[in-house]
Amino acid sequence: MGVVTDPAAIRVPDVTDDALDRLSQQLEFVQETEKLKRVLRRNLLLDGSRRENSAEHSWSLGILAMVFAEYAPPGTDLAKVAWMVLIHDIVEVDAGDTFVYDDPAVLAGQAEREEAAADRLFAVLPADQAAEVRKLWDEFEDRQSAEARFARALDRLQPMLANYRNGGGTWQTYGVTADKVWGRVELIREGSPELGRYATALIEDAIAKGYLAAG
Amino acid sequence: MGVVTDPAAIRVPDVTDDALDRLSQQLEFVQETEKLKRVLRRNLLLDGSRRENSAEHSWSLGILAMVFAEYAPPGTDLAKVAWMVLIHDIVEVDAGDTFVYDDPAVLAGQAEREEAAADRLFAVLPADQAAEVRKLWDEFEDRQSAEARFARALDRLQPMLANYRNGGGTWQTYGVTADKVWGRVELIREGSPELGRYATALIEDAIAKGYLAAG
Repeated sequence: MGVVTDPAAIRVPDVTDDALDRLSQQLEFVQETEKLKRVLRRNLLLDGSRRENSAEHSWSLGILAMVFAEYAPPGTDLAKVAWMVLIHDIVEVDAGDTFVYDDPAVLAGQAEREEAAADRLFAVLPADQAAEVRKLWDEFEDRQSAEARFARALDRLQPMLANYRNGGGTWQTYGVTADKVWGRVELIREGSPELGRYATALIEDAIAKGYLAAG
Repeated sequence: MGVVTDPAAIRVPDVTDDALDRLSQQLEFVQETEKLKRVLRRNLLLDGSRRENSAEHSWSLGILAMVFAEYAPPGTDLAKVAWMVLIHDIVEVDAGDTFVYDDPAVLAGQAEREEAAADRLFAVLPADQAAEVRKLWDEFEDRQSAEARFARALDRLQPMLANYRNGGGTWQTYGVTADKVWGRVELIREGSPELGRYATALIEDAIAKGYLAAG
């Protein structure tokens, strides 16, 4: 059985079989992911009632990946997209949430904290699986594949939808202007031309309605 | 553009193109799924701090599907498993959460409410996609395939892990005894022999530790 050094870790039955040993390491990782339910993002739920946590956000990206699967480039491995979006924020367990419009210096420090978090967290898994999941996370971060670009497009689109629905949301709270948002639209377009087209129309309408300041 | 009859629905840009029309129907559905973040389950988070909502639970099943993919029967379509677990609780948006150990009469009424909810919710999607997603949801409910049995196994395993971690959790709160839990273990075994073996060891240990009353 895997040695559980954290007293808060899932306690597992006292069995000695190698297969159960592997399973208990995997469960330790699952318990780490659980902490994402306590990490709050800056954006609100679509109904504006409260801030969203990163586990809920990741689930919404999974739903978007399913509902919008037809807008992924032909040949996209959708299981891979699903795993990417479900796991993409896991480093926030240690590093906290990043706000995409934060100061570049803040974002640079965040990138280092996230690398350190990835080193710690993925190592909780059995070594072969740790390497696989780390590769998936790196691929998402570096936008190295059609799957990663599509997953990143969904990650950019979801808060835009929430801001639009909330009549401005974090755009207004943090004084974000359209010139910064257009860069995000371009990332969406690179992941999916159709979703990019939709995001363009959405942002144009947000400006026209006064939800988002031109600039 | 899709006619948005609910004033709380996502407002979409004023565009007339057919493709954007389809996309706006899909976004209406996404907005319906969002409500799952407000549906509370009876079980607590693994750290015991608060009740879990159904969106968070669904995300955790997605993580379990990824981490435990190797325990799915050979040939299992893992993208299908991912969509199943992400969408499986969607009917709770209208019908509320079901507690698996509730009275059979309560559970029977719940099944009717869930069917009605499925009829309403999936019809929000474009017709072709509504049929596909409904088929997926029915398959999960009826455990008609290897994918559905594996997904259901994860859905049964997740609250067991939480109860074990919380030293009894909803087993103790609601006076659930081991004789009822063994039926759930059997469902896990049918979806994945390895996970069934783990669940058996977990329940035996929960009884030995006094988290779960024999009965």
